[in-house]
Amino acid sequence: MSKPETPLLDTVNLPRDVRALDQSRLRQLADELRAEMISAVSVTGGHLGAGLGVVELTTALHYVFNTPDDKLIWDVGHQAYPHKILTGRRDRIRTLRQGSGLSGFTKRSESEYDPFGAAHSSTSISAALGFAVANKLANKPGKAIAVIGDGAMSAGMAYEAMNNAEAAGNRLVVILNDNDMSIAPPVGGLSAYLAMIVSSRPFLSLREVAKKISRKLPRPIKDALEKTDEFARGMAMGGTLFEQLGFYYVGPIDGHNLDHLIPVLENVRDAAEGPILVHVVTKKGHGYAPAEERADKLHAVQKFDVVSGVQAKAPPGPPQYQNVFGDALVEEAKSDPRICAITAAMPSGTGVDRFAKAFPDRSFDVGIAEQHAVTFAAGLAAQGMRPFCAIYSTFLQRAYDQVVHDVAIQNLPVRFAIDRAGLVGADGATHAGSFDLTYLSTLPNFVVMAPADEAELVHMVHTAAQYDDGPIAFRYPRGAGTGVALPETPQTLEIGKGRIVREGKAVAILSLGTRLAEAQAAADRLEAQGLSTTVIDLRFAKPLDNALIRKTLATHEVAVTIEENAIGGLGAHVLTLASDEGLIDGGLKLRTLRLPDMFQDHDKPELQYAEARLDADAIVETVLTALRRNSVGIVEGFRA
Amino acid sequence: MSKPETPLLDTVNLPRDVRALDQSRLRQLADELRAEMISAVSVTGGHLGAGLGVVELTTALHYVFNTPDDKLIWDVGHQAYPHKILTGRRDRIRTLRQGSGLSGFTKRSESEYDPFGAAHSSTSISAALGFAVANKLANKPGKAIAVIGDGAMSAGMAYEAMNNAEAAGNRLVVILNDNDMSIAPPVGGLSAYLAMIVSSRPFLSLREVAKKISRKLPRPIKDALEKTDEFARGMAMGGTLFEQLGFYYVGPIDGHNLDHLIPVLENVRDAAEGPILVHVVTKKGHGYAPAEERADKLHAVQKFDVVSGVQAKAPPGPPQYQNVFGDALVEEAKSDPRICAITAAMPSGTGVDRFAKAFPDRSFDVGIAEQHAVTFAAGLAAQGMRPFCAIYSTFLQRAYDQVVHDVAIQNLPVRFAIDRAGLVGADGATHAGSFDLTYLSTLPNFVVMAPADEAELVHMVHTAAQYDDGPIAFRYPRGAGTGVALPETPQTLEIGKGRIVREGKAVAILSLGTRLAEAQAAADRLEAQGLSTTVIDLRFAKPLDNALIRKTLATHEVAVTIEENAIGGLGAHVLTLASDEGLIDGGLKLRTLRLPDMFQDHDKPELQYAEARLDADAIVETVLTALRRNSVGIVEGFRA
Repeated sequence: MSKPETPLLDTVNLPRDVRALDQSRLRQLADELRAEMISAVSVTGGHLGAGLGVVELTTALHYVFNTPDDKLIWDVGHQAYPHKILTGRRDRIRTLRQGSGLSGFTKRSESEYDPFGAAHSSTSISAALGFAVANKLANKPGKAIAVIGDGAMSAGMAYEAMNNAEAAGNRLVVILNDNDMSIAPPVGGLSAYLAMIVSSRPFLSLREVAKKISRKLPRPIKDALEKTDEFARGMAMGGTLFEQLGFYYVGPIDGHNLDHLIPVLENVRDAAEGPILVHVVTKKGHGYAPAEERADKLHAVQKFDVVSGVQAKAPPGPPQYQNVFGDALVEEAKSDPRICAITAAMPSGTGVDRFAKAFPDRSFDVGIAEQHAVTFAAGLAAQGMRPFCAIYSTFLQRAYDQVVHDVAIQNLPVRFAIDRAGLVGADGATHAGSFDLTYLSTLPNFVVMAPADEAELVHMVHTAAQYDDGPIAFRYPRGAGTGVALPETPQTLEIGKGRIVREGKAVAILSLGTRLAEAQAAADRLEAQGLSTTVIDLRFAKPLDNALIRKTLATHEVAVTIEENAIGGLGAHVLTLASDEGLIDGGLKLRTLRLPDMFQDHDKPELQYAEARLDADAIVETVLTALRRNSVGIVEGFRA
Repeated sequence: MSKPETPLLDTVNLPRDVRALDQSRLRQLADELRAEMISAVSVTGGHLGAGLGVVELTTALHYVFNTPDDKLIWDVGHQAYPHKILTGRRDRIRTLRQGSGLSGFTKRSESEYDPFGAAHSSTSISAALGFAVANKLANKPGKAIAVIGDGAMSAGMAYEAMNNAEAAGNRLVVILNDNDMSIAPPVGGLSAYLAMIVSSRPFLSLREVAKKISRKLPRPIKDALEKTDEFARGMAMGGTLFEQLGFYYVGPIDGHNLDHLIPVLENVRDAAEGPILVHVVTKKGHGYAPAEERADKLHAVQKFDVVSGVQAKAPPGPPQYQNVFGDALVEEAKSDPRICAITAAMPSGTGVDRFAKAFPDRSFDVGIAEQHAVTFAAGLAAQGMRPFCAIYSTFLQRAYDQVVHDVAIQNLPVRFAIDRAGLVGADGATHAGSFDLTYLSTLPNFVVMAPADEAELVHMVHTAAQYDDGPIAFRYPRGAGTGVALPETPQTLEIGKGRIVREGKAVAILSLGTRLAEAQAAADRLEAQGLSTTVIDLRFAKPLDNALIRKTLATHEVAVTIEENAIGGLGAHVLTLASDEGLIDGGLKLRTLRLPDMFQDHDKPELQYAEARLDADAIVETVLTALRRNSVGIVEGFRA
């Protein structure tokens, strides 16, 4: 794995080094930057296509704007690898997404060149507006530049921000990075509209930019011009959607041509008018043939061979949870025409792609629009359909009010397939699904399940399909299942009933979700120490299996709950039951294992769970401590 | 209070009765409907201006469309009083917003003519799309009609829905009810754009509608036309924002002229094309002089005199929490230029209007755009400002992901002033602030406070202003304070420290928020039964005052937590602490009083709290039951 030759890039450590170069050398710099990025990601894996598409844009932005005083805010941030290389992080670029290494997104704690961290989509314009307005209020210089993809523009919060952008005046620049592709091909009216602009207009020339936005003028002349201009803009009504929302629209511009990009960006930087939206057209995967040739533009990759682009194959193993879900839903839909599936721009990540292939009419990719996804599903349910809304746990946070207001209060039978629950590994804290058991189980009317393995997931898909009494959710982790055999005929689970996996007498482990394997391992070790151990898979966080929990607590010396969720979830509900019923009055050794009160950095999931104290070690230690025993089983002042 | 003469309206019970009338009689029907609505609201109070503005639109929609098979979905639903009168609920219209009476919003359980309940803004297009698509999939007839105000159009989810509307084809009709006024005057680029359309175009004639949307044509001709048309529409790029998102735009139309409205709506109903957006211009408060003359168009009123429009004055009393907050923030901002305030279309409801009057430059009304509000605040905080984001508890749900992803993970010092926490009375379940202690306290980095009275609120505003270490929230109820004197000099509270309000020995009541008064009343009654009672105002849900709680639990026979929040909040956190530290091992009589696991209907707040078992009665009963005493204090099988 030889590194590329990068003589010019080797002289660049920070953006000021880029700005010291003659403009004629930027083409070479961009080429070396691209080569370096490909080389790095070939070692680490990660997001490739998006970064490749913005190599020239990254170079041009740091050349034209005065970062870090001007605030450059990358939406999502997974396209910021070239930005990281140019902003003092090249020496760590081959640690991307590794434990203790660089984040795969922008992150404030990593660099002053990351003024606002990201990972979820469509936050950049709101944040940039905050920076711009703060500077305005403090009478400080400095612009804020948001770089946002066309896919991210489908989210409501981008629109909310655009609708409010006027307050920033010319301190705000929005770069619309139009690569006609978010993670999957984009959907919806906006996407069609952008494609139409690009296909019907030649790229903008500098002369046209100059006509559109003037260089700085004395204040009175400027004011007069602005007034006239605003009026003219308004009355014409022939403007773009962005002009209608109050922006000056500049574009489209070829985002891979530095000779176009730089003078246009310089004009934008110096314009008296604002806010300005610059429509830049790029190609995801640009400049790397293996990426350009692939339909997904090598969006997210494993380690790969630089010459061929061939990725290291994951070793064969159990199926991914997302695919088990997708296949199970296809099976259900074969006999039930009311079943449909909704994804918010994550067809393959959620397994809905499999459903879409089988039932294209009943599959809906709404774009990055979780709020709409949930209320749309509620409307479908209200009219008799059986919608499955498949959304990652962390992204469902975007639709919390719709879950409460449109689904739970109306008690509508929307099914939530919640992927990426618990810790997620390389994507880190921003993508962790740490809170859904808390924020869903507090809602009246909701049924909340978590499968212990992929066979259980199949049962839960079937159970949810049958359940018409109200909202029902099941949450499951990222990655591969346990390898258990999938059921030929899925069962309808009894709502609110757990299952006893192993029966003992002294210790009880109440597990929800895929920590069950760790619970079993812990039980083995406890048994080896003479502690007869019961393991229960509760299956339901809500409603709880009150009878089973009551009995278990009454008949065991110590009980431990475990869940892949922060405080307020299963453990809190079990404790509340025990308190409500007075089970704690006479003494109860009940402990709750849960995610710690911190946002955990990216790392391998098993290391994250060890850090979280959610593994067999932690269970054993918790039990022994509760029993006042040390690790070799000696009772220390034990009292029954 | 004589009721108006309504001879024609008296013959109408359901929409089919409207449809049986000759069109020439609808003017009279609308006039009577308006008179009836004014009469009803003069008795009940409630939302007046919005309903008055849509009397003609309501009449026309039920006349033209085949409700309830066609699904009429009112956004927000507070303008639906005339709709309720025409859909079989006239006999109960004078019970609006009263306990056991009609809801002040649309509600599925109330009528088949309310296919989708509402109260929060901007959900109608997503829901209507669900109905339309469900009908399409089932090959059933029936359109879905969303009626949405221009203010509601500023919310991202409306845009997300529009971006996805094409899937519904001509089964979806969106009526944009443009009254240039949501609750406060609307803000932002979209609003300016709509005003510009209305001021620059004459009202649309029927001939123009017919040109725009054709009546049904044979399929092949239609297909060919549609293709050409789509192409032409696209290339022109002179369309409206709505056309750019894929709608056929029809308008503007005078929303008070039935002779214009009805033929246009008939054409829209029969059009082969779709989705169609009909831009209807109305005046809030139309047809009732006292409303038309007021700046707020009598948006929400107390009981009033029909002739004069003069509302019953609320009896003089303690100040509203919202105003205490607004005034306290003004005080803080006098000495700190970094403080700014953000509201999402609720300037007066949150008290931010007071701040805006004093510091217009530092006050931001972002429209109905909570997601943007929070991330904008995060951007401001990242650039050194001290932003206060003032949002109702129930509406903050709209921004949960932004709270997690942009504020908590980045540990940015955004201050959240959360109004309408707990039960809210006449607005009912949709507006209750029942979950914020749960969904915020589960987040790392967050500080979560709740004042026991308005003096405490002043201290918390001050504390939040000083606190730069991360996010901090304080939540307080709707309505008037307790009447306690406001502090001349606000204190900086120590983070995570409660205060002992009253010291006893046997019973401890751990209160968070304004149930403190009930806790005190309960303590009096317990003392009268010989149970010496401690009352603690915890002030903080997170971080908990671990030392104080530990000591209290160790030194009292029974402890009860109380909070105006559902499961997962304060009580769950106290129980978790007690479990983590093994305090429950030896027996602990600890109970948690919280909101019940149900969505409570609208009623007087004190009755809602009685139903919720969150009053002095409930505290006393809980303590006595835990102590195994009956209500006269006899110990039943008590064991220490």
